[in-house]
Amino acid sequence: MVKMTDKLIPDIVVGRLPRYLRAIQQMSKEGFQTTSSQVLGERLGISAAQIRKDLSQFGEFGKQGTGYPIPYLIQQLQHILKINRKWEMVLVGVGDLGHAIARYQGFANGGFHITMVFDNDPKKIGSQVGDYIVKDIALLDQNVRAAGIKIAMLTVPASEAQTVADCLVQSGIQSILNYAPVTLTVPPHVHVQNIDPVINLQRMTYYLD
Amino acid sequence: MVKMTDKLIPDIVVGRLPRYLRAIQQMSKEGFQTTSSQVLGERLGISAAQIRKDLSQFGEFGKQGTGYPIPYLIQQLQHILKINRKWEMVLVGVGDLGHAIARYQGFANGGFHITMVFDNDPKKIGSQVGDYIVKDIALLDQNVRAAGIKIAMLTVPASEAQTVADCLVQSGIQSILNYAPVTLTVPPHVHVQNIDPVINLQRMTYYLD
Repeated sequence: MVKMTDKLIPDIVVGRLPRYLRAIQQMSKEGFQTTSSQVLGERLGISAAQIRKDLSQFGEFGKQGTGYPIPYLIQQLQHILKINRKWEMVLVGVGDLGHAIARYQGFANGGFHITMVFDNDPKKIGSQVGDYIVKDIALLDQNVRAAGIKIAMLTVPASEAQTVADCLVQSGIQSILNYAPVTLTVPPHVHVQNIDPVINLQRMTYYLD
Repeated sequence: MVKMTDKLIPDIVVGRLPRYLRAIQQMSKEGFQTTSSQVLGERLGISAAQIRKDLSQFGEFGKQGTGYPIPYLIQQLQHILKINRKWEMVLVGVGDLGHAIARYQGFANGGFHITMVFDNDPKKIGSQVGDYIVKDIALLDQNVRAAGIKIAMLTVPASEAQTVADCLVQSGIQSILNYAPVTLTVPPHVHVQNIDPVINLQRMTYYLD
């Protein structure tokens, strides 16, 4: 694979790569050794042409007619997405959702690990949630800096999300997975991804009668 | 507004409408009466041209130079997305995440209401979760049919997700919000949206050093 570091890849393309990776990892578990853009496209509801075009932005992953070798494609996608390492994360906000996320077992396989959990509620600070003792949010800045952590998951109430996001950015966080139903304002070097069930649901009602 | 029912709108455009709605609802709360594609674009990190192009697919919402009247745009987007009514939903799977979702207060404002909660674990069936008594999944089909429910949220383990999705489709469900980290196979008339924190995180590590 030739890495084209001088080419700016559209974010929408980057956003599809984890979905390709998830699907071929699933195929690998099912025992497949190779796949094609057609097969992958059918699984994902994305056109084969789109998949070929997306992957070609990053190099050549298979030969015409023989398809993509799955183990190689997995390895290359992990390399491109920089998840051929373990990323440490902080979780801020230990309500119902924060609890569920702190105990979620699916991060390790994806390349992630929650290192610390924070809240501002004196009743929660010091309590145990999953494998974590909840830390005081007042200690967030020094802890995040000391550990050099770049990724945060934000599960605080909507009313507090922007204030906490500002603190996170201040501490050196560059990626925020935001579960609060608000649009966060962050500097250009910080990436935000929003998880909001209502947004996903509203996208589907469009198609209902 | 002229509704262009005979035109097929790309799903990617439909997918941006709930984000526009969320942002202008936030602006409305902040006291704004009008907005423009520029202001909206800055809030959302989407180009003004893209927003104008997306909205123009559905009609005319503002006059050149005066911007969009916020209350009218909210009402029209709710109409387009069919959330000017309340949609009933079922929730299947009462683990940590299912618990958090059953108790989440953010659905009502978005146009949604959880009507019933199901699990297959005898220890959970009959127990109280939020405002709900957990029902036996064996009763899902008759309950969903009787209530004519079209939307389901799926928070079961990955290994069970496809089987449960098949049951949901069988019962008449047409929209599935899938929290299990698997790609579901469903008939063409069923829409699936996936919520998976790992996919969102992997999209951001691409930009980290």
